[in-house]
Amino acid sequence: MNLSKLFLVVLTASAVTCCAAQSNDAPHAPLQVPAKTLPVPTDVSPAMQTLIAAPLNPAWNQLWKTGEEWRTAANAQAAKTMQTLPAMRQRLHVSVRPETIDGVRVYVVTPDVIPPEHRDKLLIHVHGGCYVLFPGESGTSEAIMMAGLGHFKVISVDYRMPPEAYFPGALDDAMTVYKAELKTTAPKNIAVFGTSAGGALVLEMMLRAKQLGLPVPGAIAPGTPMSDVTKTGDSFYTNEKVDNVLVSRDGFCDAATVVYAHGASLSDPLLSPVYGDMHGFPPAILTTGTRDLLLSNTVRVHRKLREAGVEAQLEVFEGESHAQYQFDDRVPETKEAFGEITAFFDQHLGH
Amino acid sequence: MNLSKLFLVVLTASAVTCCAAQSNDAPHAPLQVPAKTLPVPTDVSPAMQTLIAAPLNPAWNQLWKTGEEWRTAANAQAAKTMQTLPAMRQRLHVSVRPETIDGVRVYVVTPDVIPPEHRDKLLIHVHGGCYVLFPGESGTSEAIMMAGLGHFKVISVDYRMPPEAYFPGALDDAMTVYKAELKTTAPKNIAVFGTSAGGALVLEMMLRAKQLGLPVPGAIAPGTPMSDVTKTGDSFYTNEKVDNVLVSRDGFCDAATVVYAHGASLSDPLLSPVYGDMHGFPPAILTTGTRDLLLSNTVRVHRKLREAGVEAQLEVFEGESHAQYQFDDRVPETKEAFGEITAFFDQHLGH
Repeated sequence: MNLSKLFLVVLTASAVTCCAAQSNDAPHAPLQVPAKTLPVPTDVSPAMQTLIAAPLNPAWNQLWKTGEEWRTAANAQAAKTMQTLPAMRQRLHVSVRPETIDGVRVYVVTPDVIPPEHRDKLLIHVHGGCYVLFPGESGTSEAIMMAGLGHFKVISVDYRMPPEAYFPGALDDAMTVYKAELKTTAPKNIAVFGTSAGGALVLEMMLRAKQLGLPVPGAIAPGTPMSDVTKTGDSFYTNEKVDNVLVSRDGFCDAATVVYAHGASLSDPLLSPVYGDMHGFPPAILTTGTRDLLLSNTVRVHRKLREAGVEAQLEVFEGESHAQYQFDDRVPETKEAFGEITAFFDQHLGH
Repeated sequence: MNLSKLFLVVLTASAVTCCAAQSNDAPHAPLQVPAKTLPVPTDVSPAMQTLIAAPLNPAWNQLWKTGEEWRTAANAQAAKTMQTLPAMRQRLHVSVRPETIDGVRVYVVTPDVIPPEHRDKLLIHVHGGCYVLFPGESGTSEAIMMAGLGHFKVISVDYRMPPEAYFPGALDDAMTVYKAELKTTAPKNIAVFGTSAGGALVLEMMLRAKQLGLPVPGAIAPGTPMSDVTKTGDSFYTNEKVDNVLVSRDGFCDAATVVYAHGASLSDPLLSPVYGDMHGFPPAILTTGTRDLLLSNTVRVHRKLREAGVEAQLEVFEGESHAQYQFDDRVPETKEAFGEITAFFDQHLGH
């Protein structure tokens, strides 16, 4: 073995190389990573192992091009999802009823028992699905988990999606509900949460609330937010074909977002909120997983919030791909994730 | 396109598949990931881009087998590191003097200016280097950054390493210093920090303090801790040959740890602290990066702390490999990482 080679450890592991290339605009060479075999991690629950062991989503590269095509696909998917909801509602002792609030369709999700300290609190849920999936009641899955595991009343926004409406239709509908609720509930008693496109919508709502001069809520929980739809973010590369849900930055979710954007710039902070000004945001808890294609775009939001002086808590779950912390209420890690969000809301709401 | 394939998105993205295989002990099939090309991320500072663009550490698989061989290598590396320290001390306005505390070699690292609110506080630093690297003053790099960027007095423990001593020599020396400092400084005013093997030692110190009935300090900062040296942790696989510092779970750092362990079980919580009981630990801030080979073993500690009811804050930096947040004090992300640790100590010490 050659000691001179070990010196290169020093060059990598200490302070000498940093700034030499800062004034050099030559592009850096990319890193070539060989093919590899990933065993299913054994340091998560058996139920989570089963989710992680699922093969890559075979529909990851089926890319619909119009709102009408997406709606057909979404309706078919919704019918399947709907079959799973009655049993979950029963397990979690939650009831769901449709309403409209100032013309926007919502589902009011209510646990059988609401503890006294939660009776003046209200959660607003914006579901995920790349801005095109989970129409109607099929979008209430995460709201049911939050209501049942956290014992809060939740209003889940069934925002309009393509082809019924395009950007910023989803955001407009979520804001309509938020503004309506502000009339009867103090902002400090409201939290807003959602995952993936829902996580992005949570952030977009805060940007819009600031634009409109509205108070922000007491807390937010943007889960693995689609915070950058310009294909920027290192885990789009490192976790490509590692994440078994989204699979690739060139997959179905980006295609759907382009349809929703409908010609608007993808770098608009109301579509890629990581580029927005996060000063004045309320306390935020973010959740992601080590295999998540959006790991980078979750931690980038976390850092941006911290840089803006916002209290922000990051939770990263071992081995999980995109949004897997909310795939099944029976998985121990799901209970843990919603337990963290509940504790965070309990800590920050009402003050 | 076939709608039935999109149904599989539902199967992946909702609640139906979870628990079917839980009672089935058949091993899960591993995931085959094709070779890929990782561009250097553009969403970090130019200085950090340069660190990320460094080729894989060419010494990653040079595996010394004895304490004597490691010491020879460590001394050569230390000579190189030492060359970088005077300029850093000057930049950060920090002075360093050697001392011994109850027979243990330490370096007292003092910033020129200590603000009034830090004058009764003391940080204890345990350096990294796989339990074999960075002997003597070469181990003070991170302590200098913490003292200079955080404006705290730091005592950096130059713990004995192979072949001078083996497990639990490093831990014993760190505990000797901690016990000595407890005689003159209230535990609430002490924080302990370190990275990699140093991060593991921070956790091991807390386990040992509990064993001995000693008070724990006011806060800890275990950076990307080597919390599991049994090669368990998903990012050992997902980030293999993605992390340009450690590169592989079968690399130099594991080989060095085996030498240090000297026959002790690698699953002993004093070598793999993720297996320890973390109830009663003080508030902790953990730092890692999305390309870190120890990403999983950092987030697993974070979750374990949270499950034990400990206040624990997780910071994950975009695109960074193992410990790169403390490679160079001039990198903006380095300042940000130490800024977070400083804010955390300010929040938790003294109470």
